[in-house]
Amino acid sequence: MSTEPGTLSAERILDAAEEVLRRFGPAKATVLDVARALGVSHGSVYRHFPSKAALRSAVTERWLARMSTPLADVATADEPAAERLRRWLFELNRSKRRIAREDPELFDTFNLLATQLEDVVAAHLEVLAGQLAVIIADGVAAGEFDVADPALAGRAVLQATTRFHHPAHLTEWAEPVLEDDLAAVLALLLDGLRVRPAN
Amino acid sequence: MSTEPGTLSAERILDAAEEVLRRFGPAKATVLDVARALGVSHGSVYRHFPSKAALRSAVTERWLARMSTPLADVATADEPAAERLRRWLFELNRSKRRIAREDPELFDTFNLLATQLEDVVAAHLEVLAGQLAVIIADGVAAGEFDVADPALAGRAVLQATTRFHHPAHLTEWAEPVLEDDLAAVLALLLDGLRVRPAN
Repeated sequence: MSTEPGTLSAERILDAAEEVLRRFGPAKATVLDVARALGVSHGSVYRHFPSKAALRSAVTERWLARMSTPLADVATADEPAAERLRRWLFELNRSKRRIAREDPELFDTFNLLATQLEDVVAAHLEVLAGQLAVIIADGVAAGEFDVADPALAGRAVLQATTRFHHPAHLTEWAEPVLEDDLAAVLALLLDGLRVRPAN
Repeated sequence: MSTEPGTLSAERILDAAEEVLRRFGPAKATVLDVARALGVSHGSVYRHFPSKAALRSAVTERWLARMSTPLADVATADEPAAERLRRWLFELNRSKRRIAREDPELFDTFNLLATQLEDVVAAHLEVLAGQLAVIIADGVAAGEFDVADPALAGRAVLQATTRFHHPAHLTEWAEPVLEDDLAAVLALLLDGLRVRPAN
């Protein structure tokens, strides 16, 4: 199946790149493999992504965005900030567990790529911390939280829940007590964020 | 250099095992290598450790205890609980960074072993969570903290600081902002633990 370069969108290239990465692994996958899978010349791919590195970054960014984008809705949902924070943290953990279970090859592939793409991961973590900052700032505005710097607190909450979203901890997520553990960490963090009664 | 079985202590075997593991790595190191390093028969080693697995567990336990034992003093120091908690978390992070820097081969070796010895690691984490529970319970007794279940809170604090003590995050510890990040997480956790003024 051959495709004219004119109809070749960046999105289709990324779909093919994801499939090639899943099949060959990051060490062996090449731009030529991606072009072959699409039935185009590798020049056609380079017209969208100037280098193999650019293609890898783009496909990894898209993969990470698949996790962060649905969470933006949770961050801005019409409910108390504490409830949003709870849903946000549990959904992040559950979505990672679901992907790891349903497509373990792709999960491993992208985690390996992510360790090599520090800037891409740093930008992803900024997005997540930013969503948490929105929840916390809303909580402050609603008189629910008492936090001087919501951006700093968002970053701290993200880091304090590393065990529940960083893929290095995947094997620990099988524990039956996982959700109890996350609930206990969340309770402690919420106690830290909440408004204290005045003296 | 040959040693009589009678003078062969478990401690000396563990010293030799550590050196053999460092040199050959966990995949290749054998009990025979350890016996050779000590100039004894492998039977003499088996008299102390009934199997290669038992020797590996014991040497890994000792390695982990080297990190947890000094922290017991911090946990019971004569100072406010908040200050103990701060020192405890920073010392755990700093001691891991120091070891990783001074002896990277041994650090990698034991981290690899630890991933294969879940029970040993779980027991180590219990010890650490227990030390945190002591700090928190003392804080409650002193009227400094308000926590219903210090054991649960100790486990939650340990998990909430995973990013700062789990070796999977070693590469992130080089960040210049590392200690600021730990301080921000600590501040949030302390806000959650502290007594709230009465209404």
